[in-house]
Amino acid sequence: MSKVNLKDKFQLFNAYWTPKILGELNNSYVKIFKAKGEFVWHSHENEDEFFLVIKGQLNIKLRDGEIQLKEGEFAIIPKGVEHLPYANEEAHILLFEPKEVINTGTTASEKTVTNPEWI
Amino acid sequence: MSKVNLKDKFQLFNAYWTPKILGELNNSYVKIFKAKGEFVWHSHENEDEFFLVIKGQLNIKLRDGEIQLKEGEFAIIPKGVEHLPYANEEAHILLFEPKEVINTGTTASEKTVTNPEWI
Repeated sequence: MSKVNLKDKFQLFNAYWTPKILGELNNSYVKIFKAKGEFVWHSHENEDEFFLVIKGQLNIKLRDGEIQLKEGEFAIIPKGVEHLPYANEEAHILLFEPKEVINTGTTASEKTVTNPEWI
Repeated sequence: MSKVNLKDKFQLFNAYWTPKILGELNNSYVKIFKAKGEFVWHSHENEDEFFLVIKGQLNIKLRDGEIQLKEGEFAIIPKGVEHLPYANEEAHILLFEPKEVINTGTTASEKTVTNPEWI
């Protein structure tokens, strides 16, 4: 059992929208990703997602609005809710979600990552 | 659906070792608590716990060592592992754990909180 330093982990990769796994608990993963530009509209059939901004700002478009998350702010996107994350500048995000989640949900995309890497 | 600002939430209460619920997803709660002084030795029979330090330093004594978590660092305490959190100065912690978790696990204590408050 050991601790994880988020800043250290964010230095290990550069690709945007590519989740990395940092830990596992209760059938969920703790993941991080770097955001810049626009992701894809998608939803997750069975899983809620937790987004916490560690650095920068992440915006999440919804069909009926938008959430703007700054450092130290989080939002939970319930299952079934379509969302489109985007970031104007690089942002660092902590993600919490069940193991079986695929980043683009039910939307197939070139951004789909089916087997995130542990770092 | 709305965002949550962690700093704002930490300003809403002062009691130490008293978890507050900020959000719910996939049968788990996102909680925060303020730590200062020593908690109690305990473990959770069926639930892993995620501790992320938002401010200050949280130490977690284990039967075979100790983890010292500073701001931006997290640890996952697996189910069944006895642990004793303590903080020399006030620390602010984000917690992630299944809904059914009781803060003192299988240890009854004056610090036991059976029904954490939503804030």
